[in-house]
Amino acid sequence: MRENDLIRAIRAHAVVPAGMRGIGDDCCEWTPAGRTCLSVDTIVEGVHFLAGDDPLLVGRKAAGAALSDLAATGAKPVGAVVSLSLPGRWNGVQVMDGLLAELTRHGCPLLGGDTTGGQQLTISVTVWGEAAGSRLLHRDGAAAGDLLIVTGPLGGSLASGRHLRPEPRFAEGAWLAASPYVHAAMDLSDGLASDAPRLAEASGCGCLLLPNQVPIHADVSGPDGARSACCDGEDFELLAAISAEHWPHFQLSWPFAARVAVVGWLTPETAHTMEDDLGRRVPLTLRGYEHPLTA
Amino acid sequence: MRENDLIRAIRAHAVVPAGMRGIGDDCCEWTPAGRTCLSVDTIVEGVHFLAGDDPLLVGRKAAGAALSDLAATGAKPVGAVVSLSLPGRWNGVQVMDGLLAELTRHGCPLLGGDTTGGQQLTISVTVWGEAAGSRLLHRDGAAAGDLLIVTGPLGGSLASGRHLRPEPRFAEGAWLAASPYVHAAMDLSDGLASDAPRLAEASGCGCLLLPNQVPIHADVSGPDGARSACCDGEDFELLAAISAEHWPHFQLSWPFAARVAVVGWLTPETAHTMEDDLGRRVPLTLRGYEHPLTA
Repeated sequence: MRENDLIRAIRAHAVVPAGMRGIGDDCCEWTPAGRTCLSVDTIVEGVHFLAGDDPLLVGRKAAGAALSDLAATGAKPVGAVVSLSLPGRWNGVQVMDGLLAELTRHGCPLLGGDTTGGQQLTISVTVWGEAAGSRLLHRDGAAAGDLLIVTGPLGGSLASGRHLRPEPRFAEGAWLAASPYVHAAMDLSDGLASDAPRLAEASGCGCLLLPNQVPIHADVSGPDGARSACCDGEDFELLAAISAEHWPHFQLSWPFAARVAVVGWLTPETAHTMEDDLGRRVPLTLRGYEHPLTA
Repeated sequence: MRENDLIRAIRAHAVVPAGMRGIGDDCCEWTPAGRTCLSVDTIVEGVHFLAGDDPLLVGRKAAGAALSDLAATGAKPVGAVVSLSLPGRWNGVQVMDGLLAELTRHGCPLLGGDTTGGQQLTISVTVWGEAAGSRLLHRDGAAAGDLLIVTGPLGGSLASGRHLRPEPRFAEGAWLAASPYVHAAMDLSDGLASDAPRLAEASGCGCLLLPNQVPIHADVSGPDGARSACCDGEDFELLAAISAEHWPHFQLSWPFAARVAVVGWLTPETAHTMEDDLGRRVPLTLRGYEHPLTA
Protein backbone atom coordinates (compact mmCIF):
# COMPACT_ATOMS: atom_id res chain seq x y z
CA MET A 1 0.00 0.00 0.00
CA ARG A 2 1.26 3.43 -0.82
CA GLU A 3 0.65 6.78 0.81
CA ASN A 4 -1.99 7.95 -1.68
CA ASP A 5 -3.97 4.70 -1.38
CA LEU A 6 -4.14 4.93 2.40
CA ILE A 7 -5.12 8.59 2.27
CA ARG A 8 -7.92 7.71 -0.17
CA ALA A 9 -9.16 4.95 2.16
CA ILE A 10 -9.18 7.32 5.13
CA ARG A 11 -10.83 10.10 3.19
CA ALA A 12 -13.67 7.82 2.18
CA HIS A 13 -14.54 7.24 5.86
CA ALA A 14 -13.86 10.68 7.35
CA VAL A 15 -16.98 12.85 7.48
CA VAL A 16 -16.26 16.58 7.51
CA PRO A 17 -18.88 18.65 9.37
CA ALA A 18 -20.39 21.71 7.71
CA GLY A 19 -18.21 24.78 8.05
CA MET A 20 -14.99 22.81 8.39
CA ARG A 21 -12.38 21.75 5.83
CA GLY A 22 -10.84 18.31 6.19
CA ILE A 23 -8.38 16.05 4.43
CA GLY A 24 -7.21 17.27 1.04
CA ASP A 25 -5.63 20.65 1.70
CA ASP A 26 -2.29 21.66 3.21
CA CYS A 27 -4.24 22.55 6.37
CA CYS A 28 -7.63 21.67 7.79
CA GLU A 29 -9.86 24.55 8.92
CA TRP A 30 -12.60 25.34 11.37
CA THR A 31 -14.17 28.38 13.02
CA PRO A 32 -13.59 28.19 16.78
CA ALA A 33 -16.42 29.21 19.10
CA GLY A 34 -14.00 30.47 21.77
CA ARG A 35 -11.12 29.48 24.01
CA THR A 36 -9.56 26.37 22.50
CA CYS A 37 -7.48 23.60 24.06
CA LEU A 38 -5.28 21.13 22.19
CA SER A 39 -3.17 18.08 22.95
CA VAL A 40 -0.95 15.65 21.06
CA ASP A 41 -0.45 12.07 22.19
CA THR A 42 1.75 9.47 20.54
CA ILE A 43 1.81 5.70 20.91
CA VAL A 44 4.73 3.62 19.65
CA GLU A 45 5.00 -0.09 18.86
CA GLY A 46 6.99 -1.89 21.55
CA VAL A 47 6.38 0.92 24.05
CA HIS A 48 2.59 1.40 24.25
CA PHE A 49 1.46 -1.72 22.37
CA LEU A 50 2.99 -4.86 20.90
CA ALA A 51 3.59 -6.20 17.41
CA GLY A 52 0.83 -8.83 17.83
CA ASP A 53 -1.90 -6.49 19.09
CA ASP A 54 -5.14 -6.09 17.16
CA PRO A 55 -4.67 -3.14 14.75
CA LEU A 56 -8.26 -2.00 15.40
CA LEU A 57 -7.51 -1.74 19.13
CA VAL A 58 -4.16 -0.05 18.51
CA GLY A 59 -5.97 2.62 16.50
CA ARG A 60 -8.61 2.87 19.21
CA LYS A 61 -5.96 3.35 21.90
CA ALA A 62 -4.22 6.11 19.93
CA ALA A 63 -7.47 8.07 19.66
CA GLY A 64 -8.70 7.32 23.18
CA ALA A 65 -5.43 8.32 24.88
CA ALA A 66 -5.44 11.65 23.04
CA LEU A 67 -9.13 12.34 23.72
CA SER A 68 -8.55 11.63 27.41
CA ASP A 69 -6.53 14.86 27.64
CA LEU A 70 -9.53 16.83 26.37
CA ALA A 71 -11.81 15.05 28.83
CA ALA A 72 -9.48 15.92 31.72
CA THR A 73 -9.63 19.57 30.68
CA GLY A 74 -13.43 19.62 30.81
CA ALA A 75 -13.56 20.07 27.05
CA LYS A 76 -15.62 18.57 24.27
CA PRO A 77 -13.83 17.54 21.06
CA VAL A 78 -13.85 19.75 17.96
CA GLY A 79 -11.40 18.01 15.64
CA ALA A 80 -8.44 15.68 15.25
CA VAL A 81 -5.53 15.04 12.89
CA VAL A 82 -3.37 11.93 12.85
CA SER A 83 0.19 11.22 11.84
CA LEU A 84 1.01 7.62 11.04
CA SER A 85 4.43 6.00 10.59
CA LEU A 86 3.44 2.66 9.14
CA PRO A 87 5.65 -0.40 8.58
CA GLY A 88 4.42 -2.69 5.79
CA ARG A 89 3.56 -5.53 8.19
CA TRP A 90 0.76 -3.51 9.79
CA ASN A 91 -2.70 -3.17 8.22
CA GLY A 92 -2.96 0.61 8.04
CA VAL A 93 -6.61 0.57 7.01
CA GLN A 94 -7.56 -1.42 10.13
CA VAL A 95 -5.50 0.86 12.37
CA MET A 96 -7.31 3.85 10.88
CA ASP A 97 -10.71 2.10 11.16
CA GLY A 98 -10.18 1.61 14.90
CA LEU A 99 -8.96 5.17 15.29
CA LEU A 100 -11.86 6.65 13.31
CA ALA A 101 -14.44 4.59 15.20
CA GLU A 102 -13.15 5.86 18.53
CA LEU A 103 -13.09 9.48 17.34
CA THR A 104 -16.61 9.10 15.94
CA ARG A 105 -17.88 7.60 19.23
CA HIS A 106 -16.92 10.87 20.89
CA GLY A 107 -18.20 13.14 18.13
CA CYS A 108 -14.74 14.15 16.96
CA PRO A 109 -14.21 14.54 13.18
CA LEU A 110 -10.89 13.48 11.65
CA LEU A 111 -9.78 16.50 9.62
CA GLY A 112 -6.32 15.67 8.37
CA GLY A 113 -3.11 13.80 8.73
CA ASP A 114 0.17 12.63 7.43
CA THR A 115 1.53 9.17 6.58
CA THR A 116 5.11 7.99 6.23
CA GLY A 117 6.99 4.73 6.33
CA GLY A 118 8.82 3.62 9.46
CA GLN A 119 10.24 0.57 11.23
CA GLN A 120 7.86 0.84 14.19
CA LEU A 121 4.18 1.66 13.97
CA THR A 122 3.93 5.14 15.50
CA ILE A 123 0.60 6.95 15.79
CA SER A 124 0.50 10.56 16.81
CA VAL A 125 -2.97 12.02 17.37
CA THR A 126 -3.60 15.74 17.84
CA VAL A 127 -7.04 16.63 19.20
CA TRP A 128 -8.55 19.97 20.07
CA GLY A 129 -11.72 21.13 21.72
CA GLU A 130 -13.65 23.78 23.56
CA ALA A 131 -15.08 24.03 27.07
CA ALA A 132 -18.06 21.73 27.58
CA GLY A 133 -19.36 24.26 30.12
CA SER A 134 -18.17 27.63 31.32
CA ARG A 135 -14.51 26.85 32.09
CA LEU A 136 -11.57 24.58 31.35
CA LEU A 137 -9.67 22.65 34.03
CA HIS A 138 -5.92 22.83 34.67
CA ARG A 139 -3.32 21.21 36.88
CA ASP A 140 -2.57 24.39 38.76
CA GLY A 141 -5.10 26.25 40.89
CA ALA A 142 -5.28 23.74 43.74
CA ALA A 143 -4.18 24.59 47.28
CA ALA A 144 -2.70 22.88 50.31
CA GLY A 145 -5.48 21.10 52.19
CA ASP A 146 -7.34 20.11 49.01
CA LEU A 147 -8.35 16.46 48.73
CA LEU A 148 -7.13 14.38 45.79
CA ILE A 149 -9.91 12.30 44.28
CA VAL A 150 -10.05 9.78 41.42
CA THR A 151 -13.03 9.00 39.21
CA GLY A 152 -12.70 5.21 39.24
CA PRO A 153 -10.66 2.15 40.19
CA LEU A 154 -7.02 1.92 39.10
CA GLY A 155 -4.42 -0.70 38.18
CA GLY A 156 -4.01 -3.79 36.04
CA SER A 157 -4.48 -1.89 32.79
CA LEU A 158 -1.45 -3.30 30.97
CA ALA A 159 -1.59 -6.89 32.30
CA SER A 160 -5.30 -7.22 31.45
CA GLY A 161 -5.11 -5.58 28.03
CA ARG A 162 -7.52 -2.87 29.21
CA HIS A 163 -4.90 -0.29 28.17
CA LEU A 164 -5.98 -0.87 24.56
CA ARG A 165 -9.52 0.25 25.40
CA PRO A 166 -9.12 3.57 27.18
CA GLU A 167 -12.37 5.31 28.13
CA PRO A 168 -11.94 9.10 27.92
CA ARG A 169 -13.95 10.45 30.87
CA PHE A 170 -15.78 13.23 29.05
CA ALA A 171 -18.89 13.16 31.23
CA GLU A 172 -16.81 13.16 34.41
CA GLY A 173 -14.53 15.94 33.12
CA ALA A 174 -17.50 18.14 32.21
CA TRP A 175 -19.08 17.49 35.61
CA LEU A 176 -15.84 18.33 37.43
CA ALA A 177 -15.46 21.55 35.42
CA ALA A 178 -19.03 22.50 36.40
CA SER A 179 -18.37 21.93 40.12
CA PRO A 180 -17.20 25.02 42.01
CA TYR A 181 -15.36 22.75 44.47
CA VAL A 182 -12.91 21.44 41.89
CA HIS A 183 -9.65 23.39 41.78
CA ALA A 184 -7.47 21.29 39.43
CA ALA A 185 -7.61 18.12 37.36
CA MET A 186 -5.61 15.89 35.00
CA ASP A 187 -5.91 12.43 33.49
CA LEU A 188 -4.05 9.45 34.92
CA SER A 189 -1.84 8.11 32.18
CA ASP A 190 1.47 7.36 33.92
CA GLY A 191 0.04 6.14 37.24
CA LEU A 192 -1.19 7.97 40.34
CA ALA A 193 2.26 7.75 42.00
CA SER A 194 3.74 9.87 39.17
CA ASP A 195 0.73 11.96 38.22
CA ALA A 196 -0.34 13.15 41.71
CA PRO A 197 3.08 14.77 42.29
CA ARG A 198 2.74 16.52 38.91
CA LEU A 199 -0.59 18.06 39.87
CA ALA A 200 0.84 19.00 43.29
CA GLU A 201 3.92 20.63 41.71
CA ALA A 202 1.82 22.57 39.19
CA SER A 203 -0.20 23.94 42.11
CA GLY A 204 2.90 24.78 44.18
CA CYS A 205 2.12 22.13 46.78
CA GLY A 206 3.40 18.79 47.99
CA CYS A 207 1.22 15.72 48.35
CA LEU A 208 0.42 12.90 50.71
CA LEU A 209 -0.82 9.77 48.93
CA LEU A 210 -2.99 7.22 50.71
CA PRO A 211 -2.18 4.00 48.82
CA ASN A 212 -4.53 1.94 50.96
CA GLN A 213 -7.45 4.19 50.03
CA VAL A 214 -6.95 3.90 46.28
CA PRO A 215 -9.79 1.90 44.68
CA ILE A 216 -8.30 -1.20 43.07
CA HIS A 217 -9.53 -2.23 39.63
CA ALA A 218 -11.00 -5.73 39.21
CA ASP A 219 -8.30 -6.30 36.56
CA VAL A 220 -5.56 -6.30 39.22
CA SER A 221 -4.43 -9.85 39.90
CA GLY A 222 -1.10 -9.50 41.75
CA PRO A 223 -0.57 -9.73 45.51
CA ASP A 224 -0.03 -5.99 46.10
CA GLY A 225 -3.18 -4.38 44.80
CA ALA A 226 -2.46 -0.95 46.25
CA ARG A 227 0.92 -0.82 44.52
CA SER A 228 -0.64 -1.85 41.19
CA ALA A 229 -3.32 0.81 41.57
CA CYS A 230 -0.70 3.50 42.24
CA CYS A 231 1.99 2.45 39.76
CA ASP A 232 0.61 0.53 36.74
CA GLY A 233 -0.43 3.56 34.70
CA GLU A 234 -2.66 3.91 31.61
CA ASP A 235 -5.85 4.05 33.67
CA PHE A 236 -7.19 7.18 31.96
CA GLU A 237 -9.36 7.94 34.98
CA LEU A 238 -9.31 11.56 36.14
CA LEU A 239 -7.48 12.92 39.18
CA ALA A 240 -8.87 16.11 40.70
CA ALA A 241 -8.16 18.37 43.65
CA ILE A 242 -11.25 19.54 45.52
CA SER A 243 -11.85 21.68 48.59
CA ALA A 244 -11.87 19.37 51.62
CA GLU A 245 -14.78 21.06 53.39
CA HIS A 246 -17.08 20.31 50.47
CA TRP A 247 -16.18 16.62 50.17
CA PRO A 248 -19.40 15.38 51.80
CA HIS A 249 -21.55 17.41 49.41
CA PHE A 250 -19.31 16.51 46.47
CA GLN A 251 -19.54 12.81 47.24
CA LEU A 252 -23.31 12.91 47.70
CA SER A 253 -23.90 14.69 44.41
CA TRP A 254 -21.50 12.47 42.41
CA PRO A 255 -23.72 11.11 39.62
CA PHE A 256 -21.57 8.37 38.08
CA ALA A 257 -21.66 4.59 38.58
CA ALA A 258 -17.99 4.27 39.53
CA ARG A 259 -17.37 5.36 43.11
CA VAL A 260 -15.42 8.59 43.55
CA ALA A 261 -12.60 8.04 46.05
CA VAL A 262 -10.23 10.17 48.10
CA VAL A 263 -6.65 9.04 47.43
CA GLY A 264 -4.62 11.76 49.18
CA TRP A 265 -4.15 15.40 50.11
CA LEU A 266 -2.20 18.38 48.91
CA THR A 267 0.25 19.63 51.51
CA PRO A 268 1.90 23.01 52.13
CA GLU A 269 5.39 21.42 52.21
CA THR A 270 6.43 20.56 48.66
CA ALA A 271 7.68 17.04 49.49
CA HIS A 272 5.95 14.03 47.88
CA THR A 273 4.90 11.66 50.64
CA MET A 274 2.63 8.70 51.31
CA GLU A 275 1.04 7.00 54.26
CA ASP A 276 2.56 3.59 54.93
CA ASP A 277 0.74 0.52 56.26
CA LEU A 278 1.23 1.72 59.84
CA GLY A 279 -0.29 5.14 59.17
CA ARG A 280 3.08 6.93 59.19
CA ARG A 281 3.91 9.69 56.69
CA VAL A 282 6.97 8.57 54.72
CA PRO A 283 8.65 9.68 51.48
CA LEU A 284 6.78 8.61 48.33
CA THR A 285 8.78 5.62 47.11
CA LEU A 286 6.16 4.35 44.67
CA ARG A 287 6.75 5.33 41.04
CA GLY A 288 4.40 5.36 38.10
CA TYR A 289 5.48 4.43 34.61
CA GLU A 290 8.01 6.73 32.95
CA HIS A 291 8.83 5.93 29.33
CA PRO A 292 12.58 5.52 29.01
CA LEU A 293 13.90 7.65 26.14
CA THR A 294 16.51 5.07 25.24
CA ALA A 295 14.91 2.46 23.02
CA MET B 1 17.96 11.19 29.59
CA ARG B 2 14.45 10.51 30.73
CA GLU B 3 11.13 11.96 29.67
CA ASN B 4 10.83 14.42 32.57
CA ASP B 5 14.37 15.75 32.05
CA LEU B 6 13.77 16.48 28.38
CA ILE B 7 10.43 18.12 29.14
CA ARG B 8 12.14 20.33 31.74
CA ALA B 9 14.83 21.32 29.21
CA ILE B 10 12.18 22.20 26.60
CA ARG B 11 10.05 24.09 29.09
CA ALA B 12 12.98 26.27 30.09
CA HIS B 13 13.29 27.51 26.49
CA ALA B 14 9.65 27.73 25.43
CA VAL B 15 8.17 31.19 25.98
CA VAL B 16 4.39 31.21 26.37
CA PRO B 17 2.71 34.41 25.13
CA ALA B 18 0.24 36.23 27.39
CA GLY B 19 -3.24 34.74 27.22
CA MET B 20 -2.01 31.27 26.24
CA ARG B 21 -1.24 28.18 28.31
CA GLY B 22 1.74 26.10 27.30
CA ILE B 23 3.62 23.02 28.43
CA GLY B 24 2.57 21.65 31.81
CA ASP B 25 -1.12 20.85 31.42
CA ASP B 26 -2.96 18.02 29.71
CA CYS B 27 -3.77 20.53 26.95
CA CYS B 28 -2.37 23.85 25.84
CA GLU B 29 -4.84 26.71 25.35
CA TRP B 30 -5.31 29.86 23.38
CA THR B 31 -8.14 32.19 22.37
CA PRO B 32 -8.51 32.14 18.57
CA ALA B 33 -9.17 35.38 16.74
CA GLY B 34 -11.20 33.66 14.05
CA ARG B 35 -11.10 30.99 11.37
CA THR B 36 -8.21 28.67 12.23
CA CYS B 37 -6.13 26.33 10.09
CA LEU B 38 -3.96 23.46 11.33
CA SER B 39 -1.55 20.93 9.90
CA VAL B 40 0.56 18.04 11.17
CA ASP B 41 3.81 17.04 9.50
CA THR B 42 6.07 14.17 10.49
CA ILE B 43 9.68 13.44 9.58
CA VAL B 44 11.23 10.03 10.20
CA GLU B 45 14.87 8.96 10.43
CA GLY B 46 15.90 7.05 7.32
CA VAL B 47 13.02 8.54 5.31
CA HIS B 48 13.31 12.34 5.63
CA PHE B 49 16.79 12.57 7.17
CA LEU B 50 19.69 10.28 7.99
CA ALA B 51 21.27 8.95 11.16
CA GLY B 52 24.35 11.17 10.71
CA ASP B 53 22.51 14.45 10.10
CA ASP B 54 23.01 17.41 12.44
CA PRO B 55 20.32 17.18 15.16
CA LEU B 56 19.89 20.97 15.08
CA LEU B 57 19.06 20.81 11.37
CA VAL B 58 16.79 17.81 11.84
CA GLY B 59 14.81 19.81 14.40
CA ARG B 60 14.79 22.78 12.07
CA LYS B 61 13.46 20.68 9.19
CA ALA B 62 10.65 19.24 11.32
CA ALA B 63 9.44 22.73 12.23
CA GLY B 64 10.03 24.26 8.80
CA ALA B 65 8.19 21.53 6.90
CA ALA B 66 5.16 21.92 9.17
CA LEU B 67 5.19 25.73 9.01
CA SER B 68 5.35 25.55 5.22
CA ASP B 69 1.76 24.24 5.22
CA LEU B 70 0.60 27.35 7.09
CA ALA B 71 2.54 29.55 4.68
CA ALA B 72 0.87 27.87 1.69
CA THR B 73 -2.54 28.58 3.22
CA GLY B 74 -1.79 32.29 3.55
CA ALA B 75 -1.79 31.97 7.34
CA LYS B 76 0.43 33.31 10.09
CA PRO B 77 1.42 30.91 12.91
CA VAL B 78 -0.38 30.92 16.26
CA GLY B 79 1.07 27.89 18.03
CA ALA B 80 2.75 24.51 17.76
CA VAL B 81 3.03 21.24 19.63
CA VAL B 82 5.61 18.54 18.99
CA SER B 83 5.68 14.80 19.49
CA LEU B 84 9.11 13.22 19.66
CA SER B 85 10.02 9.51 19.50
CA LEU B 86 13.64 9.64 20.56
CA PRO B 87 16.20 6.82 20.41
CA GLY B 88 18.99 7.19 23.00
CA ARG B 89 21.67 7.81 20.33
CA TRP B 90 20.10 11.15 19.37
CA ASN B 91 20.68 14.34 21.35
CA GLY B 92 17.08 15.28 22.11
CA VAL B 93 17.99 18.69 23.52
CA GLN B 94 19.78 19.66 20.29
CA VAL B 95 16.88 18.42 18.16
CA MET B 96 14.52 20.54 20.23
CA ASP B 97 16.89 23.53 20.12
CA GLY B 98 16.84 23.44 16.31
CA LEU B 99 13.08 23.01 16.29
CA LEU B 100 12.46 25.83 18.76
CA ALA B 101 14.80 28.21 16.92
CA GLU B 102 12.89 27.66 13.67
CA LEU B 103 9.50 28.14 15.34
CA THR B 104 10.77 31.28 17.07
CA ARG B 105 12.14 32.67 13.78
CA HIS B 106 8.56 32.61 12.49
CA GLY B 107 6.93 33.90 15.66
CA CYS B 108 5.36 30.58 16.56
CA PRO B 109 5.32 29.61 20.27
CA LEU B 110 5.82 25.97 21.26
CA LEU B 111 2.88 25.19 23.54
CA GLY B 112 3.10 21.49 24.28
CA GLY B 113 4.25 18.08 23.29
CA ASP B 114 4.84 14.47 24.02
CA THR B 115 8.01 12.39 24.21
CA THR B 116 8.45 8.63 23.97
CA GLY B 117 11.21 6.17 23.20
CA GLY B 118 11.55 4.64 19.76
CA GLN B 119 14.01 2.92 17.42
CA GLN B 120 13.90 5.70 14.83
CA LEU B 121 13.90 9.40 15.58
CA THR B 122 10.39 10.52 14.60
CA ILE B 123 9.31 14.14 14.94
CA SER B 124 5.70 15.09 14.46
CA VAL B 125 4.94 18.80 14.52
CA THR B 126 1.40 20.19 14.65
CA VAL B 127 1.10 23.88 13.83
CA TRP B 128 -1.93 26.11 13.62
CA GLY B 129 -2.58 29.63 12.51
CA GLU B 130 -4.97 32.28 11.30
CA ALA B 131 -5.32 34.20 8.04
CA ALA B 132 -2.52 36.74 7.57
CA GLY B 133 -5.00 38.84 5.58
CA SER B 134 -8.65 38.49 4.71
CA ARG B 135 -8.75 34.91 3.43
CA LEU B 136 -7.05 31.51 3.50
CA LEU B 137 -5.88 29.68 0.38
CA HIS B 138 -6.92 26.16 -0.67
CA ARG B 139 -6.14 23.62 -3.35
CA ASP B 140 -9.60 23.78 -4.85
CA GLY B 141 -11.12 26.86 -6.42
CA ALA B 142 -8.96 26.96 -9.53
CA ALA B 143 -10.42 26.57 -13.02
CA ALA B 144 -9.40 25.22 -16.40
CA GLY B 145 -7.32 27.84 -18.19
CA ASP B 146 -5.61 29.03 -14.99
CA LEU B 147 -1.82 29.27 -15.08
CA LEU B 148 0.28 27.28 -12.65
CA ILE B 149 3.06 29.38 -11.12
CA VAL B 150 5.86 28.62 -8.65
CA THR B 151 7.49 31.07 -6.23
CA GLY B 152 11.10 30.00 -6.84
CA PRO B 153 13.53 27.56 -8.43
CA LEU B 154 13.13 23.83 -7.80
CA GLY B 155 15.24 20.68 -7.55
CA GLY B 156 18.39 19.40 -5.92
CA SER B 157 17.02 19.76 -2.41
CA LEU B 158 17.97 16.29 -1.18
CA ALA B 159 21.31 15.93 -2.95
CA SER B 160 22.51 19.34 -1.75
CA GLY B 161 21.26 19.00 1.84
CA ARG B 162 18.99 22.03 1.32
CA HIS B 163 16.06 19.83 2.39
CA LEU B 164 17.28 20.25 6.00
CA ARG B 165 16.83 24.04 5.74
CA PRO B 166 13.32 24.54 4.38
CA GLU B 167 12.20 28.14 4.07
CA PRO B 168 8.46 28.43 4.74
CA ARG B 169 7.22 31.04 2.27
CA PHE B 170 5.09 33.10 4.67
CA ALA B 171 5.57 36.43 2.87
CA GLU B 172 4.78 34.83 -0.50
CA GLY B 173 1.73 32.99 0.90
CA ALA B 174 0.32 36.16 2.44
CA TRP B 175 0.91 38.05 -0.82
CA LEU B 176 -0.78 35.31 -2.87
CA ALA B 177 -3.77 35.28 -0.48
CA ALA B 178 -4.07 39.06 -0.89
CA SER B 179 -4.06 38.85 -4.70
CA PRO B 180 -7.53 38.57 -6.28
CA TYR B 181 -5.98 36.68 -9.22
CA VAL B 182 -4.93 33.68 -7.14
CA HIS B 183 -7.50 30.88 -7.15
CA ALA B 184 -5.65 28.03 -5.38
CA ALA B 185 -2.30 27.26 -3.76
CA MET B 186 -0.28 24.58 -1.99
CA ASP B 187 3.31 24.00 -0.96
CA LEU B 188 5.67 21.82 -3.00
CA SER B 189 6.82 19.02 -0.74
CA ASP B 190 6.67 15.92 -2.94
CA GLY B 191 7.77 17.54 -6.20
CA LEU B 192 5.91 19.51 -8.86
CA ALA B 193 5.20 16.36 -10.91
CA SER B 194 3.15 14.93 -8.01
CA ASP B 195 1.85 18.12 -6.44
CA ALA B 196 0.54 19.87 -9.56
CA PRO B 197 -1.82 16.94 -10.32
CA ARG B 198 -3.07 17.13 -6.71
CA LEU B 199 -3.98 20.81 -7.07
CA ALA B 200 -5.58 20.05 -10.44
CA GLU B 201 -7.62 17.16 -9.00
CA ALA B 202 -8.78 19.22 -6.02
CA SER B 203 -10.04 21.85 -8.48
CA GLY B 204 -11.71 19.29 -10.75
CA CYS B 205 -9.26 19.90 -13.59
CA GLY B 206 -6.44 18.20 -15.38
CA CYS B 207 -3.05 19.77 -15.93
CA LEU B 208 -0.40 20.36 -18.55
CA LEU B 209 3.10 20.70 -17.10
CA LEU B 210 5.82 22.57 -18.96
CA PRO B 211 9.00 20.89 -17.66
CA ASN B 212 11.24 23.07 -19.76
CA GLN B 213 9.75 26.22 -18.20
CA VAL B 214 10.37 25.16 -14.60
CA PRO B 215 13.08 27.30 -12.97
CA ILE B 216 15.97 25.05 -12.01
CA HIS B 217 17.62 25.57 -8.63
CA ALA B 218 21.37 26.25 -8.53
CA ASP B 219 21.66 23.16 -6.31
CA VAL B 220 20.79 20.87 -9.26
CA SER B 221 23.93 19.20 -10.54
CA GLY B 222 22.71 16.29 -12.69
CA PRO B 223 22.37 16.28 -16.51
CA ASP B 224 18.56 16.51 -16.62
CA GLY B 225 17.79 19.69 -14.73
CA ALA B 226 14.15 19.86 -15.77
CA ARG B 227 13.54 16.35 -14.44
CA SER B 228 15.21 17.22 -11.12
CA ALA B 229 13.15 20.37 -10.82
CA CYS B 230 9.91 18.45 -11.40
CA CYS B 231 10.67 15.29 -9.40
CA ASP B 232 13.14 15.83 -6.57
CA GLY B 233 10.67 17.12 -3.98
CA GLU B 234 11.13 18.95 -0.65
CA ASP B 235 11.44 22.34 -2.30
CA PHE B 236 8.88 24.02 -0.05
CA GLU B 237 8.24 26.68 -2.66
CA LEU B 238 4.57 27.50 -3.29
CA LEU B 239 2.53 26.41 -6.29
CA ALA B 240 -0.46 28.58 -7.18
CA ALA B 241 -3.14 28.74 -9.85
CA ILE B 242 -3.83 32.24 -11.19
CA SER B 243 -6.13 33.65 -13.83
CA ALA B 244 -4.21 33.65 -17.12
CA GLU B 245 -5.48 37.03 -18.29
CA HIS B 246 -3.94 38.73 -15.26
CA TRP B 247 -0.51 37.11 -15.61
CA PRO B 248 1.19 40.24 -16.99
CA HIS B 249 -0.07 42.37 -14.11
CA PHE B 250 0.67 39.60 -11.60
CA GLN B 251 4.23 39.21 -12.83
CA LEU B 252 4.85 42.98 -12.85
CA SER B 253 3.62 43.42 -9.29
CA TRP B 254 5.51 40.39 -7.93
CA PRO B 255 7.61 41.91 -5.11
CA PHE B 256 10.01 39.07 -4.23
CA ALA B 257 13.62 38.50 -5.23
CA ALA B 258 13.07 35.01 -6.63
CA ARG B 259 11.48 35.11 -10.08
CA VAL B 260 7.87 33.89 -10.29
CA ALA B 261 7.55 31.40 -13.15
CA VAL B 262 4.74 29.81 -15.15
CA VAL B 263 5.19 26.01 -15.06
CA GLY B 264 1.93 24.81 -16.62
CA TRP B 265 -1.81 25.17 -17.09
CA LEU B 266 -4.98 23.69 -15.71
CA THR B 267 -7.00 21.92 -18.37
CA PRO B 268 -10.69 21.03 -18.73
CA GLU B 269 -9.88 17.35 -19.41
CA THR B 270 -8.87 15.68 -16.14
CA ALA B 271 -5.79 13.93 -17.58
CA HIS B 272 -2.34 14.80 -16.25
CA THR B 273 -0.11 15.76 -19.15
CA MET B 274 3.15 17.49 -19.98
CA GLU B 275 4.80 19.13 -22.96
CA ASP B 276 7.73 17.09 -24.28
CA ASP B 277 10.92 18.49 -25.80
CA LEU B 278 9.24 18.74 -29.21
CA GLY B 279 6.32 20.74 -27.87
CA ARG B 280 3.89 17.82 -28.05
CA ARG B 281 1.32 17.20 -25.32
CA VAL B 282 2.00 13.74 -23.85
CA PRO B 283 0.92 11.86 -20.70
CA LEU B 284 2.72 13.02 -17.55
CA THR B 285 5.32 10.33 -16.99
CA LEU B 286 7.39 12.28 -14.46
CA ARG B 287 6.74 11.42 -10.82
CA GLY B 288 7.52 13.26 -7.61
CA TYR B 289 8.59 11.54 -4.47
CA GLU B 290 6.00 9.30 -2.79
CA HIS B 291 7.02 7.84 0.56
CA PRO B 292 6.66 4.07 0.40
CA LEU B 293 4.65 2.81 3.36
CA THR B 294 6.73 -0.33 3.60
CA ALA B 295 9.87 0.41 5.56
